[in-house]
Amino acid sequence: MDRFFPEVSLPIAFEGPGSDNPLAFKWYDAKRVVAGRTMAEHLKFAVSYWHTFQGTGADPFGGGVYQRPWKTAADPVQQARDTMDAAFEFMAKLGAPYWCFHDRDIAPEGASVADSARILDGIVKQAKQLQKATGVKLLWGTANLFSHARYCHGAATNPDPAVFAQGCAQVRHALDATVELGGTGYVFWGGREGYSTLLNTDMKREQAQFARLLHMAWDYGQRIGFKGRFFIEPKPKEPSTHQYDVDAATVLGFLREHGCWDFVDLNIENNHATLAGHTFAHDLMVASQAGKLGSLDINRGNPQLGWDTDQFPTNVDDAVWAMHIILDQGGLPHGGLNFDAKVRRGSYDAVDLFHAHIGGMDAFARGLIIADKMRQDGFRAKHLAERYAGWKQGFGAEVLAGRVTLEQAEAEAARAGEPRRISGREEFLENRWNQYLYDRGLH
Amino acid sequence: MDRFFPEVSLPIAFEGPGSDNPLAFKWYDAKRVVAGRTMAEHLKFAVSYWHTFQGTGADPFGGGVYQRPWKTAADPVQQARDTMDAAFEFMAKLGAPYWCFHDRDIAPEGASVADSARILDGIVKQAKQLQKATGVKLLWGTANLFSHARYCHGAATNPDPAVFAQGCAQVRHALDATVELGGTGYVFWGGREGYSTLLNTDMKREQAQFARLLHMAWDYGQRIGFKGRFFIEPKPKEPSTHQYDVDAATVLGFLREHGCWDFVDLNIENNHATLAGHTFAHDLMVASQAGKLGSLDINRGNPQLGWDTDQFPTNVDDAVWAMHIILDQGGLPHGGLNFDAKVRRGSYDAVDLFHAHIGGMDAFARGLIIADKMRQDGFRAKHLAERYAGWKQGFGAEVLAGRVTLEQAEAEAARAGEPRRISGREEFLENRWNQYLYDRGLH
Amino acid sequence: MDRFFPEVSLPIAFEGPGSDNPLAFKWYDAKRVVAGRTMAEHLKFAVSYWHTFQGTGADPFGGGVYQRPWKTAADPVQQARDTMDAAFEFMAKLGAPYWCFHDRDIAPEGASVADSARILDGIVKQAKQLQKATGVKLLWGTANLFSHARYCHGAATNPDPAVFAQGCAQVRHALDATVELGGTGYVFWGGREGYSTLLNTDMKREQAQFARLLHMAWDYGQRIGFKGRFFIEPKPKEPSTHQYDVDAATVLGFLREHGCWDFVDLNIENNHATLAGHTFAHDLMVASQAGKLGSLDINRGNPQLGWDTDQFPTNVDDAVWAMHIILDQGGLPHGGLNFDAKVRRGSYDAVDLFHAHIGGMDAFARGLIIADKMRQDGFRAKHLAERYAGWKQGFGAEVLAGRVTLEQAEAEAARAGEPRRISGREEFLENRWNQYLYDRGLH
Amino acid sequence: MDRFFPEVSLPIAFEGPGSDNPLAFKWYDAKRVVAGRTMAEHLKFAVSYWHTFQGTGADPFGGGVYQRPWKTAADPVQQARDTMDAAFEFMAKLGAPYWCFHDRDIAPEGASVADSARILDGIVKQAKQLQKATGVKLLWGTANLFSHARYCHGAATNPDPAVFAQGCAQVRHALDATVELGGTGYVFWGGREGYSTLLNTDMKREQAQFARLLHMAWDYGQRIGFKGRFFIEPKPKEPSTHQYDVDAATVLGFLREHGCWDFVDLNIENNHATLAGHTFAHDLMVASQAGKLGSLDINRGNPQLGWDTDQFPTNVDDAVWAMHIILDQGGLPHGGLNFDAKVRRGSYDAVDLFHAHIGGMDAFARGLIIADKMRQDGFRAKHLAERYAGWKQGFGAEVLAGRVTLEQAEAEAARAGEPRRISGREEFLENRWNQYLYDRGLH
Repeated sequence: MDRFFPEVSLPIAFEGPGSDNPLAFKWYDAKRVVAGRTMAEHLKFAVSYWHTFQGTGADPFGGGVYQRPWKTAADPVQQARDTMDAAFEFMAKLGAPYWCFHDRDIAPEGASVADSARILDGIVKQAKQLQKATGVKLLWGTANLFSHARYCHGAATNPDPAVFAQGCAQVRHALDATVELGGTGYVFWGGREGYSTLLNTDMKREQAQFARLLHMAWDYGQRIGFKGRFFIEPKPKEPSTHQYDVDAATVLGFLREHGCWDFVDLNIENNHATLAGHTFAHDLMVASQAGKLGSLDINRGNPQLGWDTDQFPTNVDDAVWAMHIILDQGGLPHGGLNFDAKVRRGSYDAVDLFHAHIGGMDAFARGLIIADKMRQDGFRAKHLAERYAGWKQGFGAEVLAGRVTLEQAEAEAARAGEPRRISGREEFLENRWNQYLYDRGLH
Repeated sequence: MDRFFPEVSLPIAFEGPGSDNPLAFKWYDAKRVVAGRTMAEHLKFAVSYWHTFQGTGADPFGGGVYQRPWKTAADPVQQARDTMDAAFEFMAKLGAPYWCFHDRDIAPEGASVADSARILDGIVKQAKQLQKATGVKLLWGTANLFSHARYCHGAATNPDPAVFAQGCAQVRHALDATVELGGTGYVFWGGREGYSTLLNTDMKREQAQFARLLHMAWDYGQRIGFKGRFFIEPKPKEPSTHQYDVDAATVLGFLREHGCWDFVDLNIENNHATLAGHTFAHDLMVASQAGKLGSLDINRGNPQLGWDTDQFPTNVDDAVWAMHIILDQGGLPHGGLNFDAKVRRGSYDAVDLFHAHIGGMDAFARGLIIADKMRQDGFRAKHLAERYAGWKQGFGAEVLAGRVTLEQAEAEAARAGEPRRISGREEFLENRWNQYLYDRGLH
Repeated sequence: MDRFFPEVSLPIAFEGPGSDNPLAFKWYDAKRVVAGRTMAEHLKFAVSYWHTFQGTGADPFGGGVYQRPWKTAADPVQQARDTMDAAFEFMAKLGAPYWCFHDRDIAPEGASVADSARILDGIVKQAKQLQKATGVKLLWGTANLFSHARYCHGAATNPDPAVFAQGCAQVRHALDATVELGGTGYVFWGGREGYSTLLNTDMKREQAQFARLLHMAWDYGQRIGFKGRFFIEPKPKEPSTHQYDVDAATVLGFLREHGCWDFVDLNIENNHATLAGHTFAHDLMVASQAGKLGSLDINRGNPQLGWDTDQFPTNVDDAVWAMHIILDQGGLPHGGLNFDAKVRRGSYDAVDLFHAHIGGMDAFARGLIIADKMRQDGFRAKHLAERYAGWKQGFGAEVLAGRVTLEQAEAEAARAGEPRRISGREEFLENRWNQYLYDRGLH
Repeated sequence: MDRFFPEVSLPIAFEGPGSDNPLAFKWYDAKRVVAGRTMAEHLKFAVSYWHTFQGTGADPFGGGVYQRPWKTAADPVQQARDTMDAAFEFMAKLGAPYWCFHDRDIAPEGASVADSARILDGIVKQAKQLQKATGVKLLWGTANLFSHARYCHGAATNPDPAVFAQGCAQVRHALDATVELGGTGYVFWGGREGYSTLLNTDMKREQAQFARLLHMAWDYGQRIGFKGRFFIEPKPKEPSTHQYDVDAATVLGFLREHGCWDFVDLNIENNHATLAGHTFAHDLMVASQAGKLGSLDINRGNPQLGWDTDQFPTNVDDAVWAMHIILDQGGLPHGGLNFDAKVRRGSYDAVDLFHAHIGGMDAFARGLIIADKMRQDGFRAKHLAERYAGWKQGFGAEVLAGRVTLEQAEAEAARAGEPRRISGREEFLENRWNQYLYDRGLH
């Protein structure tokens, strides 16, 4: 088990906030009980196979920079096997409870549809054994319908049905693999499901095509015994200039329109939310208040940059919001906290991968503890209850019940006169927020 | 009729593209027939009362700069009457066929709900006479539920039902005014319907409140004989940090969720679309393909600036897209082309107002002529038909009809083999687009 | 002394991080010694007269919302006097050591240049007495050359020299006031010094005009005994579409070009830096490394919004960076920490003003303590020393000394062979950063 | 000569605006005389070797998609030779007068510094012959100091002098190649010259390193007889989070600080200017007014996307501004119009490359003709002369001559009284601009 990561010989341990050891957890303590459950139960961290094991450090202006020992075999299938071994060695040493994958991350594409399926099946067997050996579980699977040249103009939304068929083949086997490995979710991220110019694009038609794929995949999943949920992951742009699944609200509208409401939840990513002009908390709340927050990608963007930087989540503010919303909705039965994050290009070493994940896990452990403290004290809940109290009785309640006409409302306005100006107390709340973050949430 | 705009004594005339006269139309020729209808029928331009007659040039860093002769009366109601006279003098001289207003643009708020209604009624009578005298018609009306201090935390979405009631009172009388003046649309723009921080905000509750207002207003409208449509105008932010009506897709989802689909269409604004991260054409297309494009605000933003600059539309590209989409959907039966644009702050003179509107009208006249030429030639339509031909028969048609399983699609993929790489021809299409714009669309 | 703020009867006290009192400091303890000096010496907080006492809550979509008791007098000069009394009552109760003003904040414009000067002089006398009575000092003064209509097309950069002359008159008296009140800085912020369209603008000429004003003002300042420094405050846009003083680097280039290097430093604002596409830390570092960081505006922007939101600084990350850089350069001899921040529009009450300033002061007190801890440990300094060690000897040092030719450098490359890939350790450093922020900096 | 582009057998011909042939110029007529010189003399178009011949269509979410016949050889050097042949076949058929290259575009890196130099020399010989055979000339050369893994943390600005040395080796031979091929420019674009986090970066030191490279390279260039100019190409971000050469103004400041003013001009790129928050025209004007506009990259960005999209320039507005500024400064003696543009990823075919370049050349031909017409009419020049007339005499002239004190200026303000409000006439100017673009510039 020290084949690929000899730098780290033992599992990463919890040493507490006083530790100087960069290879120890400061806050993530799997067995610590918070809000009635262990941290391990709350924080279903998943390592992203693509970034952590297949990432090369390539960017639009330069090629790969990492020299990974698991990428040395000349035969692609052997390389895939080595990578899988490396992945489970890493995850076991890190103590990450879950992982996530795209079909093409774990197995190279073959010479034909059948050949690709065969290669994938072989790797899935290996993964299943490794899951059993290590206790690491699959959070969700997905098919990569965006990297291959054939998907350049879309997979489900391609103008050519032959490309759609290729996508179907991949989804089928990715679903098979997800079921085989016990995944509770299956994700659709439509990086190429969008368009570059309306001069050559029929949006309505293309979105109808995508809805068909969802229905076909769900029907298939039911036939093969998939017990989890589908998740759509919104993103506004990149790689497609305009992606159809812009943000949580857009996807919710799509689900309603195309009859997919009952079987599709949302996987909300921080960096995608900010690229769409929202905060992470906003899109989490939109999804959660619709009963549709299924899973999270807990990376982080850079507000100065206009693309998906997929940094590891060290921003505790965002973690507090995320955990607050998750606690409010009672957890994530089918989903979890997938990192979808990559080390910066110049972080060449395997040890950087450990630092990155440890930092992210500690940030969310901090977030959980702080959010729990806030909720225990009723911070936010009490303030909201008081602020909207007027809608719970009398005129307000009548309005919400649909029993007030416009004229009656005018009469009420005339009767009540000019409303008082009631401060929103934003600065007070922000100061309290900071007290929880810096002064009392963790101590 | 030369009381307020003596600089322009006669109606603005069409003089053609060769004219050097800045106070003449170069392309907008009301009687010219394009695509079977006159320009006047296609281009239902509406002057925005708030910007053109009530704009002061104030911005966040400076006060008003315009010295308008219609704003000199000390009595607010007399000032409102003078402004209405000025407005119709301007619109008659410009030859603008329509106008749009907020209640508080045309009439100052009174000391009470009843007083405000009384003042508004008086001004509406004056407006009705002026409409008759000049032939200028009302496109749509709306209530200003964002400028008054009471709406700071929202109108329909306010935590205090007393503020909701105030909003209802305004909407009632704004609807009355719209019906009285023959408007075919009524707009809801929710500048304050949103939030600043989730620490003090319950989004779900607030959106339910807003849906109630829509239902109450529509019911009232039906009772008073309103024959037009409601329009929601999306905008992502400003003045509220997060507005609920982010963009076309978000509003369409909201309409589906809250049972408002049948009576609310969309009023799409260029600058709001770009602030939401889209192009104008994108949001127009989203609305139109849902059968929901009711009306347009045809201003223009500045891609370097992150707020609503509301510039006059001189960008012919956008005008071509807008008119192309409008022609495709067969026009705007209840809506039109409202400018919602203001002269730059340093354009102090009344003559600048004429220049601005003339430039905008000419830009959309250019857009109409060019779009018509494109459509006559089948540019875009032919390309789309060819590009998506595969979905109209065989496997593609079967998929769309819901008669193909995932396994069958995989079998098709295996049978057909790797799809051909078919260029999207984006550069070719852009070159043709430029030929229409610069070389052949107008000449 | 309880005339305007009866809500707060005693000076805000330090109660420590455990306090639940929203009207107490949690971390700002003026007498606490950090890094060899008291917090009061390090943290020269200045209250911004314009936002805190003259802010109305108006925004582009709505009018003023605050009902301030000091704004009730009908006579503008009396109102100005009441406002000055209110300001010093507030500052004394808050315990803010400094204030900042624009001429037009503290005194209304008169009917003529001479009249304006006369009114200003009277108010300055009052301010001087209040300074003496309370111990609150002036950090810097400035002239408002952007709000009046005459400055719409620029003040120093106006196409009309008559407007330039008006600006000179204001600058003269604002300098007089600054000297009279003992200010150690004088700020130039050029909100209107820029352009809207190049169609009517000669940038080069306009910038030469601005340089003339700087020279004229400095010469005058020397004649009247001004012992402080001039500060230019960069901002990229708003209100002018393009402001000339885009960011720190742009202004440094301008100072070099126009011979102003020796007498102008920079006043760097957080929100302006982010609007320019930088981080606050970046622009602080650019200025500091040039020896030109004179003063700071310590507000905060909103990454989702494209304009100057001027929020109070509750982001401790930014405060740590700012204090780290200030400690590194040995303090701010002529400048300090001006808030330039305003409460959110819906924070109507005087108590919100206290909350806002307390939160900002506590955030920077946290920042100071954390930055000091980092510096004591050599975090960053040690890492930098090690990372750049190669440049301090041998080939690297020879290069920097200008003693290596391109051919010799090639020979060195050939000799040394392919460089090792050395990780930048960004994730490690970010984790440590978080440890300082959450775990050990404050505790 | 039909080895790689059999689709196009003859040189692209000028057929005029009426032509429907997508493989013909509509406006670019090399021999047409405009403003006293031929179009070929004005429009020194350069094909970018990297995008057009080495572009693969890879993006951050997918691999290469193009199947280029010149990329089939297994031996990298043979592939390089084939690519060079293909390049000159393309350029000859297109009729492009110039080309640009990075060292690593035209020749693969070898096993050592010496080996790389040897390979490059061989390819340069081939290029020289092809230049002679076709008449295509080199506009500028450059070294790719950003793609190789070693430059991840910077080339000249790397913390490791060994990397600096590698960069020197490349620059030396790229300069040799530029001189050998008769290039009149040599470009420095510092994609990796910047930083990701200040936690590990010393900006001041790194910028000093970069300045050393410039001096070393210039000294070397002088020794080998380089008669052209150095150009720095600004860009604010991507791939580095913060690049040091942010925009034109930043680079001008750097040149002044580091003694490089006399030998470095600027190469301004449209997409880089917009990423920096400016317009193309703004950064062109900043450079030109400093006498420093040396060359242009005439691509185009997408205002909705936050990264370098490098689209072909079909936006005629930008082309008119660019040509107006170039005509005003009397041309580009050492530089030209490099496309630095790539076809959209889904434009798979060789014919798309032709369409793209033809469209860009026609757009700039349109721009030249329109700008010339504007200049003949004195549009802009006359308006500017009138607008700033006040500064050319009397008080204004005295101020600019440095002969007015602040007190004297105040006296002038008092004497002259409140300035008149003079409209900037922005809408009038924009309407005229549109008349030139659509109505009279081309016809």
